[in-house]
Formats: sequence, C-alpha cells, structure tokens
Amino acid sequence: MSSKFLTLTTDFGLADGYVAAMKGVILSISPDSRIFDITHSIEPQNVQQAALVLGAAAGYFPPGTIHIAVVDPGVGTLRSLLAVRIQQPREQIFLAPDNGILGVIFERYPEHEVRRIENQSLFLPMVSRTFHGRDILAPVAAHLAEGVPLEKVGPIVSDFDRGAFPHPVIRGNVIKGQIINRDSFGNLMTNISQDDLQTFDPATLLVRASYTRVTGLSGSYSDVKKGELVCLVGSGGYLEIALREGSAADKLRFSLGTEVEVSGDLLKPK
Amino acid sequence: MSSKFLTLTTDFGLADGYVAAMKGVILSISPDSRIFDITHSIEPQNVQQAALVLGAAAGYFPPGTIHIAVVDPGVGTLRSLLAVRIQQPREQIFLAPDNGILGVIFERYPEHEVRRIENQSLFLPMVSRTFHGRDILAPVAAHLAEGVPLEKVGPIVSDFDRGAFPHPVIRGNVIKGQIINRDSFGNLMTNISQDDLQTFDPATLLVRASYTRVTGLSGSYSDVKKGELVCLVGSGGYLEIALREGSAADKLRFSLGTEVEVSGDLLKPK
Amino acid sequence: MSSKFLTLTTDFGLADGYVAAMKGVILSISPDSRIFDITHSIEPQNVQQAALVLGAAAGYFPPGTIHIAVVDPGVGTLRSLLAVRIQQPREQIFLAPDNGILGVIFERYPEHEVRRIENQSLFLPMVSRTFHGRDILAPVAAHLAEGVPLEKVGPIVSDFDRGAFPHPVIRGNVIKGQIINRDSFGNLMTNISQDDLQTFDPATLLVRASYTRVTGLSGSYSDVKKGELVCLVGSGGYLEIALREGSAADKLRFSLGTEVEVSGDLLKPK
Repeated sequence: MSSKFLTLTTDFGLADGYVAAMKGVILSISPDSRIFDITHSIEPQNVQQAALVLGAAAGYFPPGTIHIAVVDPGVGTLRSLLAVRIQQPREQIFLAPDNGILGVIFERYPEHEVRRIENQSLFLPMVSRTFHGRDILAPVAAHLAEGVPLEKVGPIVSDFDRGAFPHPVIRGNVIKGQIINRDSFGNLMTNISQDDLQTFDPATLLVRASYTRVTGLSGSYSDVKKGELVCLVGSGGYLEIALREGSAADKLRFSLGTEVEVSGDLLKPK
Repeated sequence: MSSKFLTLTTDFGLADGYVAAMKGVILSISPDSRIFDITHSIEPQNVQQAALVLGAAAGYFPPGTIHIAVVDPGVGTLRSLLAVRIQQPREQIFLAPDNGILGVIFERYPEHEVRRIENQSLFLPMVSRTFHGRDILAPVAAHLAEGVPLEKVGPIVSDFDRGAFPHPVIRGNVIKGQIINRDSFGNLMTNISQDDLQTFDPATLLVRASYTRVTGLSGSYSDVKKGELVCLVGSGGYLEIALREGSAADKLRFSLGTEVEVSGDLLKPK
Repeated sequence: MSSKFLTLTTDFGLADGYVAAMKGVILSISPDSRIFDITHSIEPQNVQQAALVLGAAAGYFPPGTIHIAVVDPGVGTLRSLLAVRIQQPREQIFLAPDNGILGVIFERYPEHEVRRIENQSLFLPMVSRTFHGRDILAPVAAHLAEGVPLEKVGPIVSDFDRGAFPHPVIRGNVIKGQIINRDSFGNLMTNISQDDLQTFDPATLLVRASYTRVTGLSGSYSDVKKGELVCLVGSGGYLEIALREGSAADKLRFSLGTEVEVSGDLLKPK
C-alpha cells in the first residue's frame, strides 16, 4: 500500500505557519504521506461549521485516508482527543478533540469505533498546552500512516461528545428545519435532506423562511432568472436557498438557525 | 511516465470543502495524481478573471499537465463541457465549461484540439446538476491522468466559446488598450503586450489612463521613489501600472475596462 | 533518498497565479519535488512578519528541506539573493532576497553558511526584473533538489543583512520587550522568550502593555474565563497576550512595537 492520504480541517487560517508546522511534523515522521487541506478557514472556534464542512468532504477521499480536525477551544483543559474509525462505505480514520467536531461523521457513519488518544509514545517529545494539533494529532496521524495499528493509540470509549446535528421535524406534509450554514457563494444550506423531501411533489413545494417564500424545487441554479431566489437540493444532498449569480446570504441576511418550513403535496405511493 | 500533474482554477474559495471534494474524487480514481492549486479566489462567476489567471500560469507547468478550470455560472444548463489539448510548446490538457474561460489559452496557443465531454462512463455514477466540477471534470481528469486517451471523452467540436480577449488598437505611434486585471499588490494590468511596445522608444513612452499620466517605461518597480507611479512590462508580459511599495489600484481606483492610451516616439528600424 | 521537500513563504496571496507559476517552474525542473506552502498571506512587503512566520515553522520540516522566501520590495535593484545552509539540528537550505527576511533563521541557527546566488546557468533562460521568485529562486531550488551542490550557486559572503530581531532588555526582575506579531486568532506575540521568563516565579508575573495589566503566567488559554485576557508562553516559545475564545488584538488594538513590560519575583536558585 503506497498511498498515505491525510487531510487537515482547522480554524488556523493560512497566515501564521501553524498549518505548515503540522505538515512539517507529519512529514518528519511519515515522509511519503500526502497531505490535503479540506479547509483552514473555519471561523475561530466554530466547531459546528467544521463538523459540516468535514462531514461533506471526507467521504470523497480514498479508503485509508486519515482526517485531522482541529477546532479546539478547549485546548489545555482536560478534554480528550479522539481517534475514530469508520468502516462503511470506506475505512477512514478521524483524529480530533472530543468536542462534537465529528458530529456529522458520527451521524453519517453510524458504525464507528471511538478511542481516546493516550499513548504518549506517539506524541512529540515536548507537548505544549496550546497546540495539540501539532504536538499530538499530527504525530499520531503520521504514526498511523506509517502502519501503527489504531488499537495502539488508546482504549475504546463510549462517553464522548456526539455533537448536536439539528434534525428537522417532519409532521405529515410539513417539515421544520433551519439554516445551518452558508457557503462562499452565499448559498444558504438547511438541515433538510434529499431523503426528507422525496415524499413531496417537487412542483408543489413551498419553502418559507422568515418573510421569504420560494415555490417549487428546482434542479439547478439556472432554472430561474438572474437575481431570483431558487430552492434546490445542493451538491451535499441538502435543501439550499440560493440566488442565481448572486448571494442569497447577502440578500436575505438570515442568521444561522433561522427556521425554514417546507410544505407541499405528498406524492401518492406507487 | 510517473508524473501526473493536475491543476485547479475555481471561484470556490477555500472555506467550504468543495475544492477538497474534487481532490478526493481525483485521488480515488488516480491515487498517484499530484494536484496543484492555481487559485480558488476568482471572484464568483468572473469567467474573464479566471481566463487571465489560468492563461498566465498554465504554461509554467510541465508537459502532460491537466488543468481543470471551474467558474461555471451556467452549471445545470445545456452549456457543454470542453476538453482541449494544446501541443506547443508543451502538450497540456484543459477541462472547463464552454463559457470563454479558456479564452486566453485559445489566444495564446492557436493550435488546439477541442472536444465536447460526453462519455458518461468517465463521470461519477451520480451527477448532480449543481457541481459538475466534482461530478464530471474531476473524474474525467483523473481518468485521463490514468491513461485514458483524450479521444474517449467525446467528439471534436468547432462551435465553442472562444472568449473575448480584448485586443488593443494600434494606430501609428498610439496604442489604445484597457485595464484588464489587478493583482493582490494592487498592480494594474493592461492588455498591451511587450510585443505591442517593442517599436517604441521606451524613454519617450507616455501612458495615460483617466487623469493619470506616467512618462517612460521602467524596468522594475524600484526605478521610481517609494509612493510614485511606475509603468513597466510585468512578469506576465503585459504593460502594468504600479505604485512602488504601494497599491496603484487603491490610489487610482480605476475600474476594469478603464481605457489606457500609450504614445511615444517610434524606434527607427535598424 | 527520494524525498525532496520545498516550502514557499511569500506575500503574493493566492488570487493571482504567481505562486502557481513558481510551483510549475519547480516541477518542470524537479518533477518529484514535493512543495508545501508555509504562507502566502504575508502583508505586502512586510519582511519582518515573513521572518517571524518562516522562523517559527521551518524547523518542523524534515532534514534536507529547501525553503524559498520571497518578500522582495527591492526586486529589480542591485540587492543580492542569498542561499543559506544551516546544519543543526537538521540540515536545511533557505533561498531568499538579502533583505533581512532570514533574520529569525540567522538568530535561531547561529551556524550558517551564506552564499550569494550568482550562477545564471541555474536560472530560467529569461529573467524578468520584477519576479525573481519565479525566474531565479524557484529554478535554483529545483536544481538543488535535483542534487546540484550548494557550492555551485555562488560564493560565500559575509556582508549580508542579518535582519533586526528586536531583543528584549532584561534588568534584574524587569524585562522590557514589545509586541512583534499577531496571529489570525488575535493572539499578540511578544519578543520575550520562555528562556527569558524561566528565572521568574510564574505566579507573581505582572505583564503590562499600555494600560493593560495581566497577572500570572497561565499554562493554557482555558485557565481564565471566556472573554478574559491571559498571558502564556505560546506554541512558538514566546510570551503571548491572548483573550479566551476571542481576539486580544481586536480588544486591545495594540500596534506592532507596543512596549511590553514583565516584572515579578525571581525564583531562588536551587
């Protein structure tokens, strides 16, 4: 096996060299590792945003990929660090603080093995109290990439933070969900999934959020005119409110958590 | 041949994991591919800016490099996706929507073979209507990197968008061009090339744009004092208006398209 | 030895394709090179900031790594370009303009061999006067990665810019230093090192900067309540003023250079 893929998801930004220090640590232990950035632009300490971005991107990486996620407001406290293995559809490993940052992963991959990282022989010799990404997670990931079995990092635990992925509430032909993220185009993502919508007749769908109403579920941004709002299932599989060739987020100014209500005619079972 | 170089040019930004999803798709098909970012900071839907940045950087990459460009306001419409091969000075391949984003490439490399991407067996099994970069271009690029011949992607076409690279107008000893881009230093790039200027005596050159006048063509930013405007041929081969150790863009506040007129004494033919 | 690691530290930003052009040049000469970004977000022409970020990150990279640093307000003047080799604790090479950008490296690795880059056979055939990073430093680095001995780049020099790392002044139980950087979290870094502080009783430490006072040296950000200021030795080994889960820089609005005075009880020698 020659491919050793690692990814990084942090709130470090790219200005300071923190990310580079983590990469240097990994390469010093595992020179053949290939390291990819998922993002370093998570808002400082926004664990929930990191959970969503990581959850959306991780599954596209090859089997065996090791993902490191570091949004860690509790660094230096007694919070644990976790190593998580999922098996389906691909075996992958996640290393992260025990603060809910893996919430979407736990949600999406219900079969997961969770261990607490305790084996100090896999850490850097000097561990700071302010940068466990560099001093613990990076070297542990590199040792795993070099073939150290996951069992060596520490014991299986069951009392960990499963995160708080907000599920929509479905009653008959009404779904109540919320805005959970915005992307850099200004598209507003909800927590209402394609599965939640599949019993509805798309043409009759009515999406309400605050004073905004959009009728009909479209297939792509270009189903409406430039400057008009459009609802569709985005590339991540969730209902999205967008503005063709513009920013729905700038136009609507919804905050995260804004309630989104979907109603419509139910399809008759075939 | 062991080197499989791919590059990415998008308007996705780096906050959302879209770029990472594309990289994951590529690596899942072509694990040895080596993927480089040209930029992901194109303004949303600014096809012309992407054309300029890609056109300036692509030629520095090795023979065989496959470039993916995704600024795609028409995603989900009937617009085609193109695969383009250039041969000189190096064989390279470009994959992009048919919207003019390859305009500078077509301009710079007049011998090019253009195909429409149609072979669905090279796509992801599920193609969304909102993210063809991930679902079509990334897997097609990866299959090409793995040795699938370009002919397999689809038929040669001749009716495609060649982009709109604005050529300057030259009449005697006067050139009328325009500002076509600004870089992150605030240097203002024109569409007037080194070739356009080579018949002029550099010392006599007068550059006018709006109420600004700069005399003489300099060799480097440091030919003038700190805070002064300077005109020179930039590293991409085009006339540039810059401010030493400052931002000409912030000082002059020209919009893209501002007319730039160059005049001067013509060199006598030797 | 198959690993050829290179890093880049620049003020180019990621929007323009300048960084990509450098990577393309490197790969065209040394296809197996593996190139890592330290940062491209140095403020335009801020040589001192680049010196700090590079100095903090470089040491984490493996032996043999070649670091290119390009913040180069003097490009096109007669300033030299330098190639520097350090031996301890790991052999690494640095290529950069002779403008103090390697100041922290010179400070931290006192044994260094400094050469002036002069061998034009290692440059690109055409050298612009505005982009020596692409036309000189990138190809020289690539040739070194391919095994060209450092001696070939040019002669040893002793009259180079050693940078101006501002040392704190220590008198008895008082240290006078200054704010030298801020990171993207808004943590304010000083030039007062862990070594400078080790003779003090941490509990008695009083840190003053402008009208701000913080008592006691903490071990981590979470030793204080959310929203409170905290002083600690940061992950780079220097005294830092931070705000738990917030930005000390935004709250205090100190400029770089703000004086920081530390006093406290000296520990009794054991």
